[in-house]
Amino acid sequence: MSEFYLVRVHVTLKKGVMDPQGEAVKQGLLTLGYQGVKEVRVGKYLEVALEAPDEEEARRQVEEMCRRLLANPVLEDFSVDIHAAQRHQEEHENTSAYSI
Amino acid sequence: MSEFYLVRVHVTLKKGVMDPQGEAVKQGLLTLGYQGVKEVRVGKYLEVALEAPDEEEARRQVEEMCRRLLANPVLEDFSVDIHAAQRHQEEHENTSAYSI
Repeated sequence: MSEFYLVRVHVTLKKGVMDPQGEAVKQGLLTLGYQGVKEVRVGKYLEVALEAPDEEEARRQVEEMCRRLLANPVLEDFSVDIHAAQRHQEEHENTSAYSI
Repeated sequence: MSEFYLVRVHVTLKKGVMDPQGEAVKQGLLTLGYQGVKEVRVGKYLEVALEAPDEEEARRQVEEMCRRLLANPVLEDFSVDIHAAQRHQEEHENTSAYSI
């Protein structure tokens, strides 16, 4: 029997890789007067609702997804947090139907 | 005396807001054969290194940054996690100089 999982994925630039988007955000914050800002790094955050036989298989699949599609392994690191999820009745077509 | 903080910020679309980027990622994953994928939502993840007098002031500033620049309060939610950080000697110009 399959279970539902909500998987939280963080994709971040490896240390030493230039982050022009982060630099732009930092300059924007300094311009707004936040003089305490020393560095900003920008990454991606994804929530994947997944049906899988068990947590181990869910993790294996999502780590493979990261290597194949979600992250660029040359430039980016990724981390995966798996949570058992409940599937809800969908109230609206665009409403997220999964939660931890 | 000021302290250094590493602030982790998540910016996510509010429930009910369409996520065409997440839908595109979902379709890509289905095409790759991950038939268990039910939903994908894409958000932003930022790490802000900040000098501030104390944790309370760091949180106040970053929540204000989110409302003013980092998030769109109409469409997006944000969350802020604050960690005390150490400042390192910078080995390379582009290397992150702060860590939890």
